[in-house]
Amino acid sequence: MGHGGGGALSAELVQQIFVPAFGGEVLAQLGDSAAVSLGGTRLAFSTDSFVVRPLFFPGGSIGDLAVNGTVNDLAMSGARAAYLSCGFILEEGVEMPVVAGVADAMGAAARAAGVEVATGDTKVVEAGHGDGVYINTAGIGLIPSGVDLCPQRVVPGDVVIVSGDIGVHGVAIMSVREGLEFGVEIESDCAALGGLVETMLAVTPDLHVLRDPTRGGLAAALCEIATVSCTGIVIQERAIPVPPTVANACAILGLDPMYVANEGKLVAFVPREHADAVLAAMRTHPLGAGATIIGETVATHPGMVVARTLLGGTRVVDLPLGEQLPRIC
Amino acid sequence: MGHGGGGALSAELVQQIFVPAFGGEVLAQLGDSAAVSLGGTRLAFSTDSFVVRPLFFPGGSIGDLAVNGTVNDLAMSGARAAYLSCGFILEEGVEMPVVAGVADAMGAAARAAGVEVATGDTKVVEAGHGDGVYINTAGIGLIPSGVDLCPQRVVPGDVVIVSGDIGVHGVAIMSVREGLEFGVEIESDCAALGGLVETMLAVTPDLHVLRDPTRGGLAAALCEIATVSCTGIVIQERAIPVPPTVANACAILGLDPMYVANEGKLVAFVPREHADAVLAAMRTHPLGAGATIIGETVATHPGMVVARTLLGGTRVVDLPLGEQLPRIC
Repeated sequence: MGHGGGGALSAELVQQIFVPAFGGEVLAQLGDSAAVSLGGTRLAFSTDSFVVRPLFFPGGSIGDLAVNGTVNDLAMSGARAAYLSCGFILEEGVEMPVVAGVADAMGAAARAAGVEVATGDTKVVEAGHGDGVYINTAGIGLIPSGVDLCPQRVVPGDVVIVSGDIGVHGVAIMSVREGLEFGVEIESDCAALGGLVETMLAVTPDLHVLRDPTRGGLAAALCEIATVSCTGIVIQERAIPVPPTVANACAILGLDPMYVANEGKLVAFVPREHADAVLAAMRTHPLGAGATIIGETVATHPGMVVARTLLGGTRVVDLPLGEQLPRIC
Repeated sequence: MGHGGGGALSAELVQQIFVPAFGGEVLAQLGDSAAVSLGGTRLAFSTDSFVVRPLFFPGGSIGDLAVNGTVNDLAMSGARAAYLSCGFILEEGVEMPVVAGVADAMGAAARAAGVEVATGDTKVVEAGHGDGVYINTAGIGLIPSGVDLCPQRVVPGDVVIVSGDIGVHGVAIMSVREGLEFGVEIESDCAALGGLVETMLAVTPDLHVLRDPTRGGLAAALCEIATVSCTGIVIQERAIPVPPTVANACAILGLDPMYVANEGKLVAFVPREHADAVLAAMRTHPLGAGATIIGETVATHPGMVVARTLLGGTRVVDLPLGEQLPRIC
């Protein structure tokens, strides 16, 4: 299970098996989505499979995740998603109203994100070889000219911004899956980030990198960017927006909110001269109302993420080994 | 299981649940791949999930299928596949050498087809919720100018050509899955058809439709084209190339070779004036060496496929209801 958790074991699987086997240059860049060129057009191309359990949870469903997850991966390349593909793997015996409910949720999410489901496929596997519904989506979108988002562009002095509260999606799933009650129901914040990214790029196309902190949470996103950019990252722990419900749930469960998955939040590395304007623009967008600066990049400790703790100390933020929460997306 | 078999139940699922839920115009065309326009570029975009059992079989593996299946769907739009995405769903406990073997097979198949795996994703599900390895691929490729392949373009008088022996892939899978021995080992003919299609389009871009007769076999492909084009199709049963090993295996199993899945064969509807030249060109290509004319389209009985039998009679060829062979791709 650890190999699917988005942490060090996942990275090992990709680096040791998939990259050597496939051998492509684009894949080796390992972004949330690939930037490819076709007929003179620059496209973002991305895929994600969704195996979340339960299929429906407070604030969303596997259908919402399947649309928003891929739309968000494309948005992290600066691309507005144009077309999605959709592959269903249904388990024999799943009720048709469940399939229809998932499909309806996907359709609604696609319309909300302004993306068209253009092609699809359905396979059915025997009972006991699936879990109701698995969905894969892939997506394509145009990358606007002048936009080049990649971790290699991060330099010391960049400002690190998150778009809002972290940890909400992961805790929402956990609470229903394990039947835990935290006093109040926590709803997933699953959303499509294409519009927020457009708002940010309207300030300047010169953002350095965007990342969608899903599996592995904010910590994994920061560690990957630090490693690839060979830049140090310093985070102010007190600046990280964690809502009290998430903090309480994490305290009970022994989880660190920085490692909990999100789906509807982004982290941006922005040149210092644009940081205030980008932050102000983000706060005008409903999905960026809670945007805040959480840290900066530094020339010291390249490749390492350090958090200044609430008590004034520092700690190293590591890539998680395996999963904290399995099958969350 | 029937809903995944590529027959009438599959069509019902797509028409009654997915098309209304997603509501897009492109999806509603229901081709092997979607033709979309992005930044002024015409692209083919397609997806397929692969749940075949066993993962390795004579002549190929799930990795070969995952590449060639999507490459072939794009080729049916006339597009040479440029980039693939790849989503793995691994079952907890699957051995890493198995995953590596599948990935290596995908890499080799991608290099053979001239396509690059540009982006990927891996999820892990608990033991008992998968079957070792499931793979989804999506692909994109350029549609050459002047090429417009769709069933709506089929008119009475078109010539129907298949590229070679049918039924081989389905029987190969069946023989290893069920431990059946048919005297000789039957190897899957799984192959990438992009090069063959390029050879055909070099004769004339004015082919009417190409179809990859996978699930549901040649019969399902012909029925779908007859329905969408509102044209009758007449097939000469004696002209259909069925190798003796496939014929014998089908006789033992009570299957009709016309309903058995292929992966490495195509059926083409070609204007009569180009048919001889297209057929000659196909025969110069290794994957079209066995190409042959099997029938024609007619103005009578629109939407219906009729086979002239070996004994001189006629029979109606229907869309299969469900699956003949589950999890064959």
